Amino acid sequence: MRCRLAKLFTLHFSTLVVTPTCSITRCKLEAAMSDFRIRDLQPEDCRELVNMIKELAEFEGLPEQVKITEETLRRDGFGDHPFYHCLIAEVRNKDSQDGPWLTVGYAMYFYSYGTWVGRMIYLEDLYIKPQYRGKGIGTSMMTKVAQIGVENECQRMQWVVLNWNQGAIDFYKKHDSIDLTSDEKWHLFRMEREELRKFATLHDQTVIKGC
Amino acid sequence: MRCRLAKLFTLHFSTLVVTPTCSITRCKLEAAMSDFRIRDLQPEDCRELVNMIKELAEFEGLPEQVKITEETLRRDGFGDHPFYHCLIAEVRNKDSQDGPWLTVGYAMYFYSYGTWVGRMIYLEDLYIKPQYRGKGIGTSMMTKVAQIGVENECQRMQWVVLNWNQGAIDFYKKHDSIDLTSDEKWHLFRMEREELRKFATLHDQTVIKGC
Repeated sequence: MRCRLAKLFTLHFSTLVVTPTCSITRCKLEAAMSDFRIRDLQPEDCRELVNMIKELAEFEGLPEQVKITEETLRRDGFGDHPFYHCLIAEVRNKDSQDGPWLTVGYAMYFYSYGTWVGRMIYLEDLYIKPQYRGKGIGTSMMTKVAQIGVENECQRMQWVVLNWNQGAIDFYKKHDSIDLTSDEKWHLFRMEREELRKFATLHDQTVIKGC
Repeated sequence: MRCRLAKLFTLHFSTLVVTPTCSITRCKLEAAMSDFRIRDLQPEDCRELVNMIKELAEFEGLPEQVKITEETLRRDGFGDHPFYHCLIAEVRNKDSQDGPWLTVGYAMYFYSYGTWVGRMIYLEDLYIKPQYRGKGIGTSMMTKVAQIGVENECQRMQWVVLNWNQGAIDFYKKHDSIDLTSDEKWHLFRMEREELRKFATLHDQTVIKGC
């Protein structure tokens, strides 16, 4: 439930070249050192995805918060009923067209729903490694998620951001996003696993037989 | 993205009798006028679901916000890949065991995901018709959603609430929920359909051929 786009406000739109209609979105940073591309997460990416999740948590000073494992990500992101979807960003030196693609970021999203409008897309997390920020990769990833939302008839995209991340907030507002917490006073609440389990058994002492 | 539990703080736990292991959760309000039960939404409930969504929007003074239709709810809530799940609460006069069950509320939820913990369950909306509040039905519905979350290995339950709804907030805090907006400064952002469409085509003018 975190969206981190610390560098989004420094992106250079004019340098982006994107092909949104391909299964792999190939991009070129005209004035940069590397090409980049965006593709769907594959099971074999999950180890690197955990590493990036941990990098981000360490960057934020909260590495102990990461409980997720490669196995959990493999279990939940594939098959007939994935619990999440994820894009991977990769770069390659433009002077080495046969060289390997290097993973430099990810965007995790899922479909949500609103009783007033229907389908929505939720951007859970967007992370670009620090040394690759400011090149348009983050914006390109967010744009790709928006495209997927539009293609799937989603009526809104939602996400959360820390209220001190003014650069990201300025970027969102530039693109006519609404701060629902400031404007309408919505607060996000959470019940953690143990409290959820406790709450779920509130009525266990009064179970009746049969139904 | 709304959760309305205006009367939850007046619920009487001691009067609830719930069978969480049945496909239909049968409940008895010992000191009340009616039995109630909780079951999954069926396609034929969608007309009444739209009515309840509109009732709630009218109660909040925002009836014009409701764009969803019965057809959209039927399209999105069933089949192999539902975009949402929904519970229906029904009551019946306890003196009329063969009488019809009357729909009095709903709880819409879906599965979400967090990169630090994995699976989560999101309570999108919980509504009980005004005349049936204060009887434990809302708590029972929320408990059922929590049970479904625990059964599906969800690590957290999340929802949003308006910050002036002190009764609901007191109820959540009583059950050890965390206000992430107050405690950690998370703000909820949204991009509406037209802005999303515009954002999704940001790079269209720079599409390259092939990939």
